[in-house]
Amino acid sequence: MYIHGYGERESERLLAQAAAVVRLLHGDTRFPPGSRVLEVGCGTGAQTVSLARNSPGAHIVAFDHATASLARAIERVAAAGLSNVEFLHADLFALPFGVESFEHVFICFVLEHLSHPIAALRLLKQLLKPGGSVTVFEGDHGSAYFHPDSEIAHRAIACQVELQRRGGAGGNACIGRQLYPLLVQAGYDAPSVTPRVVYVDATRPDLIDSFTRKTFTWMVEAVREEAIAAGIIDAATFDAGIRDLNRAAEPDGVFCYTFFKGVAVKGPS
Amino acid sequence: MYIHGYGERESERLLAQAAAVVRLLHGDTRFPPGSRVLEVGCGTGAQTVSLARNSPGAHIVAFDHATASLARAIERVAAAGLSNVEFLHADLFALPFGVESFEHVFICFVLEHLSHPIAALRLLKQLLKPGGSVTVFEGDHGSAYFHPDSEIAHRAIACQVELQRRGGAGGNACIGRQLYPLLVQAGYDAPSVTPRVVYVDATRPDLIDSFTRKTFTWMVEAVREEAIAAGIIDAATFDAGIRDLNRAAEPDGVFCYTFFKGVAVKGPS
Repeated sequence: MYIHGYGERESERLLAQAAAVVRLLHGDTRFPPGSRVLEVGCGTGAQTVSLARNSPGAHIVAFDHATASLARAIERVAAAGLSNVEFLHADLFALPFGVESFEHVFICFVLEHLSHPIAALRLLKQLLKPGGSVTVFEGDHGSAYFHPDSEIAHRAIACQVELQRRGGAGGNACIGRQLYPLLVQAGYDAPSVTPRVVYVDATRPDLIDSFTRKTFTWMVEAVREEAIAAGIIDAATFDAGIRDLNRAAEPDGVFCYTFFKGVAVKGPS
Repeated sequence: MYIHGYGERESERLLAQAAAVVRLLHGDTRFPPGSRVLEVGCGTGAQTVSLARNSPGAHIVAFDHATASLARAIERVAAAGLSNVEFLHADLFALPFGVESFEHVFICFVLEHLSHPIAALRLLKQLLKPGGSVTVFEGDHGSAYFHPDSEIAHRAIACQVELQRRGGAGGNACIGRQLYPLLVQAGYDAPSVTPRVVYVDATRPDLIDSFTRKTFTWMVEAVREEAIAAGIIDAATFDAGIRDLNRAAEPDGVFCYTFFKGVAVKGPS
């Protein structure tokens, strides 16, 4: 989940605090004591805390290329009282590690920002020991649907998808559904992908607030100026789309979004 | 899942035989020994077999208004060696039961065909004893997405949705996401809705065949003539959409569809 602009830090914080989503995503991710785990693109450490907490005996090496994010990640992990994380300022395509340096690789909400996700997965495979595993998480904005349905809300979401495609290295906000073929094409063995649905209705007020409103809707809303400036949508339509997304957060509304977790293995060399 | 026209019986048979889907839908639905359970609109008995098998001590009363379907359901349940089902030819809005006749109501893939699903749920609530439960299953065609993505495939699916809306009593092929507000509006207590994702990639050849191809794609394909005759789509576009749905069943393709299960209780009177 990439949050552009003003809402970025707050939304990421709220997503990380949505305990139900954290459990849904990371609850079954455990790395054995003594193993070396590389976290790729840790950002501000939102996932690093769960990763390190769930595998207290593992040694996590987390890196990011953005120094401000990395500084925040270091603070966050320290504040959580975790001491099994080593941080590194580095770029994915210029990593200072030798081949077969890690037992496991963990990469969460990063592939969606890359124009060549398969190349990244291949490169990470080189860093894995034979028999080691890669664990990938991605969302998929095409998996978002809601009640009441709204074509205009889907158009607002499509602005975020289009701008993510155009921005930076050329991303893909709907990459979640592709984890299986990506892992196969990158040469991993035994890929296994599982969907993880965030289903939100009035029985989950915590998720209405932390996920529907302050993660997903804020993320879409954050591209408002850029989308209008790019001529993808007019202001009135965009604002109506956001209004309809917030409508799904009302007591008789429903919101669904699916994340995907993929795990695969590096075969014997 | 309603299959129009020629593919109906075969597709329903295959869905019922997709053991993984049956487990996903019905694996956690159990009714206690001695309880009376009403199955609403049993059709050809595709769900009745799972229902009766999973609750061997319950007494199931299954009804449908279509005599041909009912005959098939009776055969099917007999062939499965199940003896805890009583069949009845009846109409949902003219049932021969007194108030508070059942401990539980089970209704699967029926609300999607009704123009007034809330009225149906209210009527069924009268048949329940206080403290009794309703268990509802529905799919949601708006939850279908796939890799490679295809706008044309989504247009072919939209034909099925539109024809279901126009057909019969006026249905809603995207009703799954609405189970929570429907149960609330019908006056039930403590509604609890859970999504059940059918995720299909090459690691599940059984589901590629039985679900992606022979349930979902056949179901869309079955409206071809009607959709073209109604001027909703042209033949070339429709056929290209079906081709793209089948493309998602190739070894590097992925297909996702979500069913919803809702359970709610009739409060004390």
